[in-house]
Amino acid sequence: MDKKIKCTLAISLDGYIADEQGGYDWIVGDGSHENNTEKKWDFEAYMNDVDVVVMGRNCYDLQMHKEFANKEVIVMTSRKTDDNSVTFLSENIRSHLIDIRKTKNIFVFGGGNVVSQLKDIIDEYAIGIIPIILGKGIPLFHPDENRVKLNLKEIMCEDGIVVLTYTKKEA
Amino acid sequence: MDKKIKCTLAISLDGYIADEQGGYDWIVGDGSHENNTEKKWDFEAYMNDVDVVVMGRNCYDLQMHKEFANKEVIVMTSRKTDDNSVTFLSENIRSHLIDIRKTKNIFVFGGGNVVSQLKDIIDEYAIGIIPIILGKGIPLFHPDENRVKLNLKEIMCEDGIVVLTYTKKEA
Repeated sequence: MDKKIKCTLAISLDGYIADEQGGYDWIVGDGSHENNTEKKWDFEAYMNDVDVVVMGRNCYDLQMHKEFANKEVIVMTSRKTDDNSVTFLSENIRSHLIDIRKTKNIFVFGGGNVVSQLKDIIDEYAIGIIPIILGKGIPLFHPDENRVKLNLKEIMCEDGIVVLTYTKKEA
Repeated sequence: MDKKIKCTLAISLDGYIADEQGGYDWIVGDGSHENNTEKKWDFEAYMNDVDVVVMGRNCYDLQMHKEFANKEVIVMTSRKTDDNSVTFLSENIRSHLIDIRKTKNIFVFGGGNVVSQLKDIIDEYAIGIIPIILGKGIPLFHPDENRVKLNLKEIMCEDGIVVLTYTKKEA
């Protein structure tokens, strides 16, 4: 059986992942704990079984690959740099990832461009819903014709932030 | 103490309330019941304490006011018609609703235009999250500068649809 491609993101109730300037100071809880679930969202545990991290060039330029020093990092970009600590990929990325998935668990880190391009080959989503209507910002996905049906897997909650995990519905 | 203005909507995981043609055939559960909560979303109970229903002209033209025969219905529109069963309001709607709220519970039915205009005077939201990434469609709110901070009140779930209720955070 294949391994998995997974992705986690925080969104506002109106579906934005960042404000228009890319800011995310609004990604905070509401200070309440009455709806906390026993099981909490645990990013460290989530990353435990990840073998490969995929990110875009902007994230790489922001040095975010350094947070995953013990993982294989793939940077989706046409601008390659002289850096042996990561693998730069510019072509056939989807088929490449599908191939890697045969033996390795893949975590799609972001940003939005990368997630959008891969959204229908992602097997699992963990979406944190921040208690705010942001008004405007950068949407979770770039608009396209692809509908992806999901199965709800689990509900977690802490500090007014609800984390919903979904698996892709088999066609 | 004032009564409340409340609103309920179903959105896709990527924050759309309808597809681009206004369709909502995608508003369905995932067939699973493992995450069902004991308390379920109950629209009838939700409507019990509602005195006044507010809707836009399109909803009225689609005869949706007839679903609320035992409630006072306000139609937000500049095109008044000869119909005594509803009240047509075209001006100072926000201050008018704030005034009504002193003694009556108000339900903002929709559509998106109406909800968007009133989003920061709505006291309670109940948002049903449909297990689908829609790709494109009509967003929950028209983009604007207004951020509305919320407090998570309750989590309900049935058939893979998670209903989150929020109250507006006091400034």
